[in-house]
Amino acid sequence: MMLQIPRIAPLLFASTSSAQVTCLAHFSVVYDHRSGRKVKEQVAKLQALKAQLGDDFKMVLKTPKGTRDYGPKAMAIREKVLKIITETFKRHGAETIDTPVFELRDVLLGKYGEEGGKLVFDLSDQGGELCSLRYDLTVPFARYVAMNKISNIKRYHIAKVYRRDQPVMTKGRYREFYQCDFDIAGQYDLMLPEAECLKVVDEVLNSLNLGEFYTKLNHRLLLEGIFSICGIKQSDFKTVCSSVDKLDKAPWLEVRAELVNDKHIDEKAVDALEYYVRLRENNASLGSVELLDLLLEDEKAGSNKQIKQAVDELKILFEYLEIYGVSTRVLFDPSLARGLDYYTGAIYETVMKDFSFNAFTNTDSTNPEDHVTVGSVAAGGRYDKLVGMFLESAGKKKADDVPCVGISFGIERLFSIMEMKEESEKSAGRTNETEVYVASAQKGLLKERMKLCRILWDAGIKSEFAYKANPKMLNQLQYCEDRVIPWVVIVGERELKEGVVKLRNVVSREETDIPYDEIVNELQNRLS
Amino acid sequence: MMLQIPRIAPLLFASTSSAQVTCLAHFSVVYDHRSGRKVKEQVAKLQALKAQLGDDFKMVLKTPKGTRDYGPKAMAIREKVLKIITETFKRHGAETIDTPVFELRDVLLGKYGEEGGKLVFDLSDQGGELCSLRYDLTVPFARYVAMNKISNIKRYHIAKVYRRDQPVMTKGRYREFYQCDFDIAGQYDLMLPEAECLKVVDEVLNSLNLGEFYTKLNHRLLLEGIFSICGIKQSDFKTVCSSVDKLDKAPWLEVRAELVNDKHIDEKAVDALEYYVRLRENNASLGSVELLDLLLEDEKAGSNKQIKQAVDELKILFEYLEIYGVSTRVLFDPSLARGLDYYTGAIYETVMKDFSFNAFTNTDSTNPEDHVTVGSVAAGGRYDKLVGMFLESAGKKKADDVPCVGISFGIERLFSIMEMKEESEKSAGRTNETEVYVASAQKGLLKERMKLCRILWDAGIKSEFAYKANPKMLNQLQYCEDRVIPWVVIVGERELKEGVVKLRNVVSREETDIPYDEIVNELQNRLS
Repeated sequence: MMLQIPRIAPLLFASTSSAQVTCLAHFSVVYDHRSGRKVKEQVAKLQALKAQLGDDFKMVLKTPKGTRDYGPKAMAIREKVLKIITETFKRHGAETIDTPVFELRDVLLGKYGEEGGKLVFDLSDQGGELCSLRYDLTVPFARYVAMNKISNIKRYHIAKVYRRDQPVMTKGRYREFYQCDFDIAGQYDLMLPEAECLKVVDEVLNSLNLGEFYTKLNHRLLLEGIFSICGIKQSDFKTVCSSVDKLDKAPWLEVRAELVNDKHIDEKAVDALEYYVRLRENNASLGSVELLDLLLEDEKAGSNKQIKQAVDELKILFEYLEIYGVSTRVLFDPSLARGLDYYTGAIYETVMKDFSFNAFTNTDSTNPEDHVTVGSVAAGGRYDKLVGMFLESAGKKKADDVPCVGISFGIERLFSIMEMKEESEKSAGRTNETEVYVASAQKGLLKERMKLCRILWDAGIKSEFAYKANPKMLNQLQYCEDRVIPWVVIVGERELKEGVVKLRNVVSREETDIPYDEIVNELQNRLS
Repeated sequence: MMLQIPRIAPLLFASTSSAQVTCLAHFSVVYDHRSGRKVKEQVAKLQALKAQLGDDFKMVLKTPKGTRDYGPKAMAIREKVLKIITETFKRHGAETIDTPVFELRDVLLGKYGEEGGKLVFDLSDQGGELCSLRYDLTVPFARYVAMNKISNIKRYHIAKVYRRDQPVMTKGRYREFYQCDFDIAGQYDLMLPEAECLKVVDEVLNSLNLGEFYTKLNHRLLLEGIFSICGIKQSDFKTVCSSVDKLDKAPWLEVRAELVNDKHIDEKAVDALEYYVRLRENNASLGSVELLDLLLEDEKAGSNKQIKQAVDELKILFEYLEIYGVSTRVLFDPSLARGLDYYTGAIYETVMKDFSFNAFTNTDSTNPEDHVTVGSVAAGGRYDKLVGMFLESAGKKKADDVPCVGISFGIERLFSIMEMKEESEKSAGRTNETEVYVASAQKGLLKERMKLCRILWDAGIKSEFAYKANPKMLNQLQYCEDRVIPWVVIVGERELKEGVVKLRNVVSREETDIPYDEIVNELQNRLS
């Protein structure tokens, strides 16, 4: 089949700066490649212009907008946080998988709602398939489950995701950031996987020991039921959700104004909504099960099937959470309305109580996932239809559907909180693990240092020495203090003649002669 | 400054398939965004066409060309290999860093030679900077060092890189693959960092225990000197290198033909070259230092300054390698000519002897890095000018230059070899770490299983139970065998009344009653 596509002349460059000149040159080359036309002349012209610009043409040494490097200190904190999280996932029997950083564009399309979809990073069309960088780890997971015809799996996945959002680096909002997901896929009995996800959140945050936290819990059906009894149209579900979800950072009147004035939702419906979405706010002292009961006492809510089902399910969940000892840190809140399209059942979001100073930071974002409560560090829910959506569009039977539920940790925020905590505690975070530094006091002992270092490496002892023929003693000791290396072995002419080396404790500065042949044993004892 | 850019009308779509229809639809939307023009009509037309195609339009469930998922089994092997490599890096005092998966296009441009440059994946121009996916970890590392004005660092970096090469999945050649780099940056004394890189390779491959290996070693200056005394033009350096580098998988006559017939290198020069580049081949029994001496005995080579300097440096390196006990596994070979532009000194490549069955697999590649010896598992060298190049183009003084040397592990190949080894040894690689499964024999004991599981989790014991109210005993035991879980704790009506649980060894099927209150202690003892 042939299609006539109108030629579209791009109007890409209204103005240009010296930095853009190179961009243009590269773009033309790429373009040449794509269109098959010879535009080498134009490239030559641009290069001539670039040459004219001379000193004005300088490359800016930076990472792309919204991205950052992780230096050794940041990585050390990352490793520490991820170790605790990974251990927790493994304690619950999870396996890990990895998927490509980009997916076929069709795989991602239409999964993230109106707002989210706009933020997907596309790869250039260099011939072949159209691809985009993954926006989260959930959609690739569902694609993986569908593609490999997996009927059940409990997996975690820690990897970077990409969102072409307006970055606010000072607030930790990046275009490239880590996500850390734990999901349970499979046909299981009601609320058992949800309970385990919430137990996992509890264990992770307790182990990280970053402060008090609690998890807000709601149910998609409950939201649908409430909207329905208030007279809000089905087609307005998403847009109303996105406003309601702001209630944790904005007062009701503001949310009401947005709904009535900006989104043109019927005023009566919005006023009816107020009672339900402010139920938690207006009954702060009630426990979750009590609040669920209170909701059912409402005549309209009590007779709505969706609400009834949601309340029944959440009550079962609370029973399980009590067994797991985490029910007091999970709070039913009918105003929680996470933005992603794919949720079908329970939804939840975990918040750090001590980090309320982040209040109102994200209201400028167009990304629905950013419209989360102050200090949100984990979020997730049940998404039963996503795998089925992939199976269906690939022509598989709907009977193969695989229900899923999961939790995603806002790991960048956890890194930041851990960073702040370590800074305030002035705990010296090491960026290396070197145990022993091999130094020499005199010149000409390079090979002796190398020989000893080899012996230590071969014995599995983490060791370093100066890559200099004649390093100064002071510099060598300074290196150990800077890098928090606990032990120094000093080789010297006298010591070598006597068949010993000097072992120095960097902190106490105590020195002991140790027979050369016993240094490995001695260090192994002291290090263990 | 304003530039007039001729509008280029893309001729993107000569023919189209049903799969392309969606692509076009997405493309138009993106285009709209970029050009600011309204092309919604076109999108609507395409969507109508898509609707007409009806059932013919199916999404293909796959990962993009040249990419793959890593399932739990692949990940378990990856983790095992990476743990050994990471431990080795840390034993040598290295820190780790991470950089964004994409860089400004200018950062990558012109660093990978003619062939490599073509294989860079570009991001779409969605407004803003032009970016590309990283092609290796070395150029981003140099950018990081220059940008942060770092004068010395020993770092490792394990991450994915991207090459738009023709993928050969069966041969392990992907468009997205892991690299694993260890680099030492800083002004240090001659050959000390090189010696440590080669020691690191040796330790890693010995620890992985995948078979015999050796490292080929050469020097950029030595190649330049040889080419110069043979009368090969400076401007032909790269193209001659790329042919010479094929000598490990193609006979001399083939390489000669390529040089003379395809690349139009002067026949006399090529014939003069033969002696030098086949020196190792024709003197297989000579040690490295002997071969270096033999080279100097040649009148022309002996009086060439570059060759003299290279030989002197390599001799120092071999002295150090002997101290480190790795000199017998490093072999001077003047035919080694790695393709990347940025090397300035010693270059090396490590080869598995037992994996020669991979011979000639990569000759079809246009990627210079693929023109490596059969079974190549690590490669690297000195690149003293790359950081300086960034400093210079950012307008910094050249005096700030930071010399670097590094080694990059062909980790995908190491994964494959480890996979083959484990398959041949039939060693059961576990994909989870679950230690205990909590089962029940009768119905109605769900909450008892949950309660016990919670106790085990809270004691740090890795545990699971079935997410079913009434699971069958046989299914529960089968799960343990499938997933190699060593212990089962069985709760039953009788046991609970008596205050005990049954502890079952999955392999021996032995069962013991343990008092409920002692099960944690009992398991901790058995598991330690």
